[in-house]
Amino acid sequence: MDGWRLDGLRLVIEVAATLAFALSGLLEAARRRLDPVGACVAAFLTAFGGGTLRDVLLDRRPFFWVQHTEYVWAVLALTVIALTVLRAQHFALTERAIQVPDALGLGLFAASGVDLALALGHEPLIAVLMGVITGVFGGVLRDIVCNEIPTVFRDHRPYALVAFAGGWLHVGLLQLGVQGEAALLATVAAVAGARGLAVALQWELPGWRT
Amino acid sequence: MDGWRLDGLRLVIEVAATLAFALSGLLEAARRRLDPVGACVAAFLTAFGGGTLRDVLLDRRPFFWVQHTEYVWAVLALTVIALTVLRAQHFALTERAIQVPDALGLGLFAASGVDLALALGHEPLIAVLMGVITGVFGGVLRDIVCNEIPTVFRDHRPYALVAFAGGWLHVGLLQLGVQGEAALLATVAAVAGARGLAVALQWELPGWRT
Amino acid sequence: MDGWRLDGLRLVIEVAATLAFALSGLLEAARRRLDPVGACVAAFLTAFGGGTLRDVLLDRRPFFWVQHTEYVWAVLALTVIALTVLRAQHFALTERAIQVPDALGLGLFAASGVDLALALGHEPLIAVLMGVITGVFGGVLRDIVCNEIPTVFRDHRPYALVAFAGGWLHVGLLQLGVQGEAALLATVAAVAGARGLAVALQWELPGWRT
Repeated sequence: MDGWRLDGLRLVIEVAATLAFALSGLLEAARRRLDPVGACVAAFLTAFGGGTLRDVLLDRRPFFWVQHTEYVWAVLALTVIALTVLRAQHFALTERAIQVPDALGLGLFAASGVDLALALGHEPLIAVLMGVITGVFGGVLRDIVCNEIPTVFRDHRPYALVAFAGGWLHVGLLQLGVQGEAALLATVAAVAGARGLAVALQWELPGWRT
Repeated sequence: MDGWRLDGLRLVIEVAATLAFALSGLLEAARRRLDPVGACVAAFLTAFGGGTLRDVLLDRRPFFWVQHTEYVWAVLALTVIALTVLRAQHFALTERAIQVPDALGLGLFAASGVDLALALGHEPLIAVLMGVITGVFGGVLRDIVCNEIPTVFRDHRPYALVAFAGGWLHVGLLQLGVQGEAALLATVAAVAGARGLAVALQWELPGWRT
Repeated sequence: MDGWRLDGLRLVIEVAATLAFALSGLLEAARRRLDPVGACVAAFLTAFGGGTLRDVLLDRRPFFWVQHTEYVWAVLALTVIALTVLRAQHFALTERAIQVPDALGLGLFAASGVDLALALGHEPLIAVLMGVITGVFGGVLRDIVCNEIPTVFRDHRPYALVAFAGGWLHVGLLQLGVQGEAALLATVAAVAGARGLAVALQWELPGWRT
């Protein structure tokens, strides 16, 4: 594929994943009966919190959403639509529908977190952690604001771990000399595939032996 | 009014609002039975958390409280006084007494957040969000530390929304060429007025239709 | 003692305290039944959260753990070991065993927070607050992620207060012209001693009089 098509593909994944993350924030807000302001903040935190935390840690500015305010407008619009349209009977369906863009987004955000940290000269381990933070901490911040232990820290599902493994894959591919966009594509595919497998086969992380 | 008087007026609002915010943190700390350290942190977070988060996001230094340590001493003193003097029967009265400086502060902090972000060259939407964060996220951090869903995200009262509207008003006034201090004054008056109306008329934000 | 021995002593305290902080995160994770990912994040936050928050506030980079990735590997390894080895009957013993390195670490982190802030030209009060944040906010972030009111804000034990007093002691020693490493050693000893006394004598902070 040429660069133009890759850029287009990346943009499609990015938009779909951002909306999927925002929707997961809105679902949680609805379950916890937040008001419209809380719903908006939950959507916003889930969609942009991970990348923003990464950028604060890496001391990068401007943030993604500061540079692309159209995404902020989109999340605001999505919140208004959800408040108007979303009913309890849609929750399960919505949750299933966002799994695919969510898994693709996990891969994309993990890989782009790695790319940004490596470009700043960080070690592979730090880059991988930044990738995990990008993909995972939006949901963490959403759950903290909703006064819950973050799901990703207690559900024994391989989510952060898939992002962690994907981050190392991405680092490895780049060190093997694979070209940047191709490595990103491979990482996205691998992360989404592994996440899909983990969901399908109901893989569980081991627990405490106490 | 000349500049000297405006500066004085601004300072009076700033001091009163900061103490009102700190007091709201202390009330919450007393309700949740925090110890003196927790009370101090709750007061501090409520008073300075919003502006500090805004400055971290905008990468501004030094923070307000780093530059004006007299405010930190004032919050420490207020905490000691509250621990000595505050009794359960004072809670309701204190809560009513801080509504006015709180509403004025909401306007002042929203407007000054907008001013700072615009001065850094940000778009109006980002500036307005920074204004809302300045006015509202002190209370959000207080509630997170007190292990509650932030009030402002679930009480269906127009608080963040009033700050949001006030932020846009401030941006609009500045773009119409209104001089900075006059626009600030108008925004403070409008926000405090709208907030007062919202409380008096018990306006409620719509909820989920589920 | 010559500089080489002091450096060695400091390194020993630093390693022991970091592991003690990480272990306290793992104990909390085990109590709250977090999964391995959550356990790892709790350990990491407790060990590095205070210093990282301080560095974000002071706008310092790189973070300690970014510069010393061997500490990150150590916390990852400790998490794996804890998940394999830790049983409920070990909790009480572990908790007692980490009290000493924890108290030494509180002194070390408070003193080094003061040093860093003073070196950046901050006022004593700000430096002392940065010292307290370094020593205390790792545990605060751990408790927030575990959905609890931070222990240090509600248990009426002199922990943050000991760090606060130790910070002022450190500032005072430096202003009296005591050489840096000697002042650090004295602060560590004083903080650990005061903390030990507070635990032994069961000192309690006063509560609300309501």
